[in-house]
Amino acid sequence: MKAEIISVGTELLLGQIVNTNAAFLGQRLAALGVDVYFTTTVGDNFDRIVDAVRQAAGRADIIVTSGGLGPTTDDLTKEAVCAAFNIPIVNDERVREKLNDYLGRRGFGNPEAVEGNAKQALVPKGSIVLENPCGTAPGLIIEMKTTGGPLVVMLPGPPRELEPLWYGGAEPYISGFLKSRHQEGAIYSRVLRAAGIGEPALEKRIEDLVKSSNPTVAPCAKGGEIHLRITAKAKSHEQALEMVQNMDDAVSSRLGQFIFGRDQETLEGVLGRVLEENGLCLAAAESCTAGMFCARIVNVPGSSKYFAGGVVSYSDDSKRDILGVPEPILREHGAVSAECAVAMAHGACERFKADIGVSITGIAGPDGGTPEKPVGTVFIGIFEKRGNSRSAAYRRWLPGSRSDIRERAAEEALILLRRWLLER
Amino acid sequence: MKAEIISVGTELLLGQIVNTNAAFLGQRLAALGVDVYFTTTVGDNFDRIVDAVRQAAGRADIIVTSGGLGPTTDDLTKEAVCAAFNIPIVNDERVREKLNDYLGRRGFGNPEAVEGNAKQALVPKGSIVLENPCGTAPGLIIEMKTTGGPLVVMLPGPPRELEPLWYGGAEPYISGFLKSRHQEGAIYSRVLRAAGIGEPALEKRIEDLVKSSNPTVAPCAKGGEIHLRITAKAKSHEQALEMVQNMDDAVSSRLGQFIFGRDQETLEGVLGRVLEENGLCLAAAESCTAGMFCARIVNVPGSSKYFAGGVVSYSDDSKRDILGVPEPILREHGAVSAECAVAMAHGACERFKADIGVSITGIAGPDGGTPEKPVGTVFIGIFEKRGNSRSAAYRRWLPGSRSDIRERAAEEALILLRRWLLER
Repeated sequence: MKAEIISVGTELLLGQIVNTNAAFLGQRLAALGVDVYFTTTVGDNFDRIVDAVRQAAGRADIIVTSGGLGPTTDDLTKEAVCAAFNIPIVNDERVREKLNDYLGRRGFGNPEAVEGNAKQALVPKGSIVLENPCGTAPGLIIEMKTTGGPLVVMLPGPPRELEPLWYGGAEPYISGFLKSRHQEGAIYSRVLRAAGIGEPALEKRIEDLVKSSNPTVAPCAKGGEIHLRITAKAKSHEQALEMVQNMDDAVSSRLGQFIFGRDQETLEGVLGRVLEENGLCLAAAESCTAGMFCARIVNVPGSSKYFAGGVVSYSDDSKRDILGVPEPILREHGAVSAECAVAMAHGACERFKADIGVSITGIAGPDGGTPEKPVGTVFIGIFEKRGNSRSAAYRRWLPGSRSDIRERAAEEALILLRRWLLER
Repeated sequence: MKAEIISVGTELLLGQIVNTNAAFLGQRLAALGVDVYFTTTVGDNFDRIVDAVRQAAGRADIIVTSGGLGPTTDDLTKEAVCAAFNIPIVNDERVREKLNDYLGRRGFGNPEAVEGNAKQALVPKGSIVLENPCGTAPGLIIEMKTTGGPLVVMLPGPPRELEPLWYGGAEPYISGFLKSRHQEGAIYSRVLRAAGIGEPALEKRIEDLVKSSNPTVAPCAKGGEIHLRITAKAKSHEQALEMVQNMDDAVSSRLGQFIFGRDQETLEGVLGRVLEENGLCLAAAESCTAGMFCARIVNVPGSSKYFAGGVVSYSDDSKRDILGVPEPILREHGAVSAECAVAMAHGACERFKADIGVSITGIAGPDGGTPEKPVGTVFIGIFEKRGNSRSAAYRRWLPGSRSDIRERAAEEALILLRRWLLER
């Protein structure tokens, strides 16, 4: 079974945005066992979109488009697909009602907005409408059963709309389509997530496993984490799953606790579980990261069970007044120091009556570096109130831009907190 | 003058890497005044690369390829281009010598490596070789003067090799090619960034301008912002710039203060400038966003001049104890309420001795919604200490996943704070 991806948008051709949707769709189609031989990007031009769709229809069984479904006059994908296959376009009352309801709830229910969005209620005749919980453009599926044409799946361009529509509607539909044609794939893939170890050191430990051809093991650095994708191809899903499980066991036995999770598991999710299981309450104090650590902790639904809150103490005054960092520490060691990091973690713990406090203070740049503490220098403090209390500070040098340094610092704090809890 | 980009690599089709080269090349070609109507991605397959090259040759004057120039057997771009145009492939002694020299300097001068790389010294007959300072695969240019075929530029896939070869060889060559055909021109493009208005309402205001064909005006929603890209084509850069400026003036006069910035300007950057100019100090109190608002403010280098810090008050206890939200407010109105939002903003202001406090409290889901306050309900509070002090709370319903809601809430707070400061 062959698929083609058509990405629609002049902004893609001009390079104003990078086409991450094509990578996402390519990955997901591969996971379904569908081959993708070509992807095409085309601008917001009716004739050229029609050309691209017709060409893909001559080569592929499935066409997935992204973009060009919005309310404006240069959104043309729906219209061009209908023209390519001679399908009439009709008004869908259900879609229109949902749209008006959505606009009303967002406070855009004025006649002007409702009229401006009317185009979005037009759908190809006989198409299946995928409701979009995150925007106004629905996804659309056309299965040309009688004409023998390809299955066409149209998705909106913004990734935050495309991805939920893919998982919630398009992928299940394509799976069913493949099954109905006895083409279901037996590719199974799992990602092991590792942290706290460098990529060369990690690869050294599994040198022989990385050479395996089925299942394959592909390491890939993502921020401070390393993702190891294990992919097996087999006749049945069960068989592929078993092959992946065996490789997972082999990799895990080599990498031990550096593996913190699998697939969608995140560092903050794993941490949350450990905190909750141990009945611990966490608080944070952040300087250069200014809330990024707290924001990651709260990514996890239900994090209020183990997270009290944090202080973004960007100024020295707030480190002293709110977190109680002693003036001599600020004066003698400075705000970016091991001493200040521990005092901040301690202060967060006290302020929020928490069991464990984590702090981050550093120099994110572009200015403010010194020979002793260059840009990228970050101190992470941990303070735990238990018996006589324990604390530690870790110094790191993190590379990259201002935002790279801040993101890596928040991630490093998660990694260090996990190690702290494991060694507890 | 039209160009097409062909990206070669199965890893691109599988989505294992994102195609940033296409965006880079699209940008650079646009800057030269060359139109790109299609880009194609094709895997490491000889026949399919030949097909893609032939198709592009039928539509474009310039073809730029990336990838598939390496030493291994699945690197096939050079061979496929030669096949598509019936050009013989020959050994280039100068390339071979340079290659051996490069391998030697990197410590790879052993016979095995030299032999393994021999394929890289093969070049299309009559082609221009662009020396690669960062790798082993040279760039190649074929100008088919006698046959009237397109100009073909082949570049290696790794961006750290492609980009220097582009700037150092390909772009100057293409510039000369355009000049020799009196086709030099300029495209100039600028993005106006708008916020606080829905896309249809915005488009209604500039309905006629959006129909302009040169310069073009293309609106595109990005999170809570709308980006309006104005692109002009003209004989000279100065002329294109003037056309863009005139359209900028026209659009700006219709949209007024909804336009907050241009090109790389961010909401937080613009806000920071206003705060600094007015000598104001900002503090924040965040519940559901848990630091995302503060983190955005601190994206701006030098934000310590106007930002004191914030409290992530995820628990009710911390709202009461640290921010001083009165117990009756929490009891009678709940933590997600206009009353609590104002009290939190007030508390942040007091705590950090700031002039303005901003607060965010809401229900990010997936649980916790009620019929009166469904998931996505967010209250944003602003409190300003000036004379008798002023405050306000804004209720919003924001769509999407937990993380969408939180990101949109932080963005909405930035938008509301900007409006507050403008109306001050």
